Amino acid sequence: MTDSLENFRRTHYSKEVKPEMKDQEVVLMGWIHEMRDLGGIIFVLLRDRDGVTQVTAPSKKISPELFEELKKLKKESVIAVKGRVQESGKAPGGVEIIPAELKLLSESKLPLPLDTTGNVHAEIDTRLDSRFIDLRKHNVSAIFKIKSRMLHSVRNFLESEDYTEVNTPKLVASATEGGTELFPITYFEREAFLGQSPQLYKQMMMASGFDKVYEIAPIFRAEEHDTLRHLNEVISIDVETAFTDHLDAMDILEKMVVNAITEVKNNCQDALETLEFNLQIPETPFPRIEYDEMVEMVNTAGVPMKHGEDMSRAAEKAMGDIMDGYYFITEWPTAIKPFYVMPNPENPVKSCAFDLMYKDLEISSGAMRVHNHDMLLNKLKEKGLNPDSFSRYLAAFEYGMPPHAGWGVGAERFTMTMTGLKNIRETVLFPRDRRRLTP
Amino acid sequence: MTDSLENFRRTHYSKEVKPEMKDQEVVLMGWIHEMRDLGGIIFVLLRDRDGVTQVTAPSKKISPELFEELKKLKKESVIAVKGRVQESGKAPGGVEIIPAELKLLSESKLPLPLDTTGNVHAEIDTRLDSRFIDLRKHNVSAIFKIKSRMLHSVRNFLESEDYTEVNTPKLVASATEGGTELFPITYFEREAFLGQSPQLYKQMMMASGFDKVYEIAPIFRAEEHDTLRHLNEVISIDVETAFTDHLDAMDILEKMVVNAITEVKNNCQDALETLEFNLQIPETPFPRIEYDEMVEMVNTAGVPMKHGEDMSRAAEKAMGDIMDGYYFITEWPTAIKPFYVMPNPENPVKSCAFDLMYKDLEISSGAMRVHNHDMLLNKLKEKGLNPDSFSRYLAAFEYGMPPHAGWGVGAERFTMTMTGLKNIRETVLFPRDRRRLTP
Repeated sequence: MTDSLENFRRTHYSKEVKPEMKDQEVVLMGWIHEMRDLGGIIFVLLRDRDGVTQVTAPSKKISPELFEELKKLKKESVIAVKGRVQESGKAPGGVEIIPAELKLLSESKLPLPLDTTGNVHAEIDTRLDSRFIDLRKHNVSAIFKIKSRMLHSVRNFLESEDYTEVNTPKLVASATEGGTELFPITYFEREAFLGQSPQLYKQMMMASGFDKVYEIAPIFRAEEHDTLRHLNEVISIDVETAFTDHLDAMDILEKMVVNAITEVKNNCQDALETLEFNLQIPETPFPRIEYDEMVEMVNTAGVPMKHGEDMSRAAEKAMGDIMDGYYFITEWPTAIKPFYVMPNPENPVKSCAFDLMYKDLEISSGAMRVHNHDMLLNKLKEKGLNPDSFSRYLAAFEYGMPPHAGWGVGAERFTMTMTGLKNIRETVLFPRDRRRLTP
Repeated sequence: MTDSLENFRRTHYSKEVKPEMKDQEVVLMGWIHEMRDLGGIIFVLLRDRDGVTQVTAPSKKISPELFEELKKLKKESVIAVKGRVQESGKAPGGVEIIPAELKLLSESKLPLPLDTTGNVHAEIDTRLDSRFIDLRKHNVSAIFKIKSRMLHSVRNFLESEDYTEVNTPKLVASATEGGTELFPITYFEREAFLGQSPQLYKQMMMASGFDKVYEIAPIFRAEEHDTLRHLNEVISIDVETAFTDHLDAMDILEKMVVNAITEVKNNCQDALETLEFNLQIPETPFPRIEYDEMVEMVNTAGVPMKHGEDMSRAAEKAMGDIMDGYYFITEWPTAIKPFYVMPNPENPVKSCAFDLMYKDLEISSGAMRVHNHDMLLNKLKEKGLNPDSFSRYLAAFEYGMPPHAGWGVGAERFTMTMTGLKNIRETVLFPRDRRRLTP
């Protein structure tokens, strides 16, 4: 078996090998992207994380043993090549490697379950079944480079704004919003659920004196949706801030969005180019449209919508046709928002809730919260929820709870806005939906 | 109701108010830590995230209405105070605030379920039941400031080492290691499980060309343990690196640990002082003790242990008595490590697995992995596991899988080493164990 790494270590990634490095010895490692055997000369395109380098093996310049080894190589096998850099006008990056040593680290079976050259179209389900191969395509890995950078920049921004990261439990005893969209778990002899949102926990943290908290973690929703915008497990970016209101929350959300987009634009140029997506840094402040105004706009666009209703998909699409980028919808009816949303003190039929939209896609929901215990208890009851199920949560409002506001952003939907992708499955390594639980 | 924030906003935190700010108008917000009403003068200690400031209200200097409002305040209520800074030799931080305006934002019920002054001892269960009050104590919040900083520095370190953050699913169709320590979920009409580790996913990512990945996310183990070192939901810091072996993995782990400790020591001085913990930056390289040598040390210490056995708690304690800080245990018997651990090629009875210990506490397990498909299949079968349950995972080893190595660090245990705490429950905001599912 020739699959041992031994003392071979990569010295460079493909994109780091430059013509200036002429005659330098390098060790490259990666997958065999393409092979051409012209008899007296073999060309191997070696692909690694960020690029491709040509290994050029003329039979006259290398040992017969090495030439034979190269001849036997198969597509998508993993190799390590030690060799010298040579300038080449024709090869990618203007360089080629003349090999001196080769290690076959892992041989690929053929045929592949999925094409890696990007020339053959594959359905999303076929791609997800063999996700590890799908991700070898640079236009797929680009999505996750952008998502990773986005998450990193969100965290750095929130830390710079003095937020503390918290980890709240995903195993919970009762529902956040009393909904039926929960996955039940057997927790030893008891029934428990998977957290559909850290909402109640981040609110309890507001009574702890932490003031500014964030969490980036999975949430789980047992929704039976089968759309391009829903999954049953996603990453939620959750923020809660004490001693502030919904207007402050919108400001920090807006800043976070612009900062993340700017960071992605500045740091993921290659990935954006690979995706052929022209990422625009949005202007601030984002337009703020009151709910009533939105209903008028939707109706004017020919989509029937009554005041007091939630947005239908058709209404979202109508707004998406009118609005080009990010915008807030504010002043939502209290009746269609969760119990913990603060009613507008001057007109309690309206609420201090907002949604952040990108075209026709809801990116975030947020609000100022009810912080008065008795009002919260009444609102729970009004929604038909059992206060006993919320006793630990309600207790946090009895011993000094500051006013607070916050929001949650769907990391995958946010990634969709930065990549131009239309199917949320594209933005998750191993998506979970109604039908898919593997790989 | 007087609970509205209106246009009041905090201008400073307690610790930011300095004697140099004499006569400056400030707005502080927080909880009433203590009250003293001496008749003609009222002292209010206002506590916020990082400190305490004295509000001094002499009846002669403030309006009668404000004096009456102050008189009525109760401990742990939430207030906002606008006032002027005055120097004071006796008050904390050398300053006091002479109030001009007061807002009662949230009134606390009395008596409190938990003392906040730190003078009354409470059992951990009582504290966890009212965690939101427990966290108001600066010696409790200090733990989570350290944990948050640790996580932040781990991420920054890994990003600086060119690692990409990944999010792998927590809803899985089969067990990672075939164990019985899984929480079952009802996933629509199917059975699924909660991920006990991202092991199989981070390995599949090695076949994708991402090369260096990390994930910081919850893991779930249905262990019936009732110890000071186990919980059923914890945060795991997972790293996997392609084209490297276990020695490389140990190096990166060691660097990550030292970097995180250094960052915590440099940025969390107040928190460490509050905890009265003298955090030491460990010297590198950490001692590396082979398994066989460890067995001898344990036996010499009077604790019986046979070669080939896993460490008992008594064995861990014996090692903890001998070793003062961090150390690796290497060359573990292949037979007691999971199927995906690479056997030592020169002596397959031993493996390329390591544990990182801190005194008597296991902080991390890691290894070079098997990357050869047929060897992996055989090892699965040897462990009595059904290869059909692992078909999607095994497929990733058939089409070019580079050699790789990695580890997982328990974020809570790592936090224990940075705080001197002995009960893992202290390091989790809302812990989950055999008995506890709330709050």
